Formats: sequence, C-alpha cells, structure tokens
Amino acid sequence: MTTETTQSALLTTDELLKHWQGHRRLTRRTIEAFPAGQLFEFRIGGMRTFGELATEFLGMTLPTVRGISTGSFGDFKLDKPKSKDEVLKLWDEQTAMLDEEFPRIPLDRFGEKSNPFGAWEDTGLAFIQYAIENEVHHRGQGFVYLRALGIEPPHFWERD
Amino acid sequence: MTTETTQSALLTTDELLKHWQGHRRLTRRTIEAFPAGQLFEFRIGGMRTFGELATEFLGMTLPTVRGISTGSFGDFKLDKPKSKDEVLKLWDEQTAMLDEEFPRIPLDRFGEKSNPFGAWEDTGLAFIQYAIENEVHHRGQGFVYLRALGIEPPHFWERD
Repeated sequence: MTTETTQSALLTTDELLKHWQGHRRLTRRTIEAFPAGQLFEFRIGGMRTFGELATEFLGMTLPTVRGISTGSFGDFKLDKPKSKDEVLKLWDEQTAMLDEEFPRIPLDRFGEKSNPFGAWEDTGLAFIQYAIENEVHHRGQGFVYLRALGIEPPHFWERD
Repeated sequence: MTTETTQSALLTTDELLKHWQGHRRLTRRTIEAFPAGQLFEFRIGGMRTFGELATEFLGMTLPTVRGISTGSFGDFKLDKPKSKDEVLKLWDEQTAMLDEEFPRIPLDRFGEKSNPFGAWEDTGLAFIQYAIENEVHHRGQGFVYLRALGIEPPHFWERD
C-alpha cells in the first residue's frame, strides 16, 4: 500500500498530458522558426525535411490516443499539409483535440498491453512515451537544420 | 483509492530505470557508430560535436540521481573524455553506477520538489525526465551528423 500510493505520485495522467502539450508547444515554435520556403525543402544527408517530420507527428498523436483508448485507430485521416501555414493550422486543431480526447482514455489502458497499430504490443503508457520521444528525437534534428540555416532554434527547456 | 492504485500502474521506479537504460544503450550505439576521428571533430552549423554532447550526458546522469537522492550533487567529478574509447569506457562505468544508485533514491523524492542544481525547482521525476529527454534530443542531432557523414544511424526503436 505504501509503495502503491508513493508510486502513484510518480506520474498522473494529467501530468502526462501537460508534459506532452509542453513538448508540442516547443515543436510548434520549432516549426515557426523555419522560413516558409525551407520547411518542406531543406534537408541534410538525405533525411526527411522538417515539414515531413512534423507531418509524421501530426499523423501519430491522435491515432496513438485513439488506439490506446479503443484498441483501433478509428477513422483518423490526415490531409497531408503542404505549407507552413497548413502545418500550423493542423497543429493547433490537434492541440485542442488532444486536450479533449486524452482525458477520455480509460485509466486501465495506460498499464494494459495492446497492439493497436499491428506493429508491436506494449502498454498504453509506452505508446505515449514513444510518441513524445519520437517528437523530441526528430525535433532535435530540426534544431540542426535551423542551425545549418543560420537560425537560432527555440530554447529546449521552454515549454510554456 | 481506485484512482491511486490505477495511476500507480502508470510508471514504477523500476520501469523508469529500465526505460532510461534502454535509451542509454541506444546512445551508446550512436557513439559507437561514429568514426573515432570524427566524434570530437564533426559538427554542423557551429553546434557541439557529438563527443561533446555525449560528455554532457556523462556529466548529467549521476549528478541528477545524486541530486534527487540527497539534495546536492555530492562529489561527482568527471574527467572529460578526449577519445571515443574514453567516452565508451566512462559510459559503461556509469551504466553500472546508475543501476546501483538509482534504486537507492528514496521513493518520496520522485514527487517532491527540490532545487538540487541551483537552477530551478522541480520534482525528482521531472529532473529525470529532463535528463532522458535531453539525451533523446541531442542524440537525434547525432543521427543527423551520422547521416551527413554517410553513416546509417542505429534504429531509434531498438533499446535492448
């Protein structure tokens, strides 16, 4: 009992959503920092552009939440953005949708293993961590692109 | 009560350590992928080399654990590595130290706010998340360096 209540303080679902949205705010600032003409053009070493990476995030966030909630993707369909303005518009729409849908994830789904994407089985928490860390990983790459373009990236530690 | 026991399943300290060490294994493979002559030489856009970034990780991991445990850095001193072999040797030493010291963090420290580095106040969990995500962020940058050098990085999703 002592262990359980103490460990319950480790992370609550509210804190996890807040943490995710904090990262998403930083990613939004990273997208904003790109010149509109470079977001879907500039790349290093044959990698994807940051516009394509941001599109990947847009294609993962809600499917992850819905996949964990219901065990299937649902009918999520993303019209791939083609410009910086379109990316930012979709980003803001998803920010609101995430705030609305995340709290509806049944609590037991965070600890239960499932295979909602047909790729591998893991707990709901692990899929959410993966989505967040995938964003952190590729956003770091966006920082290199910005530096290579002579642009100072936003501060990593600012999440407000 | 229901909420507490359910939320306790969100994340245990054992899972958090396992998650961190999984990331550290991937970072080790990233270091290994660099040619020895490039680790402290290659950079893009005036950023730090991946050898310098790895040195930052080596300077954060144990101080974070000790800072949370005891409220102060303790006497951690890092002799900055100068070669790939030295980085990997320190990495492996710290892997063992992390396994030994992490489980000694008093459970209540994960949820308690403190200011062990004199920089900002936050919970123990938040400092650990920061250390992990800082590593994910900069390791993603290392992946760009590798691609720019014509080298395929390790798989992001492999953590064993």
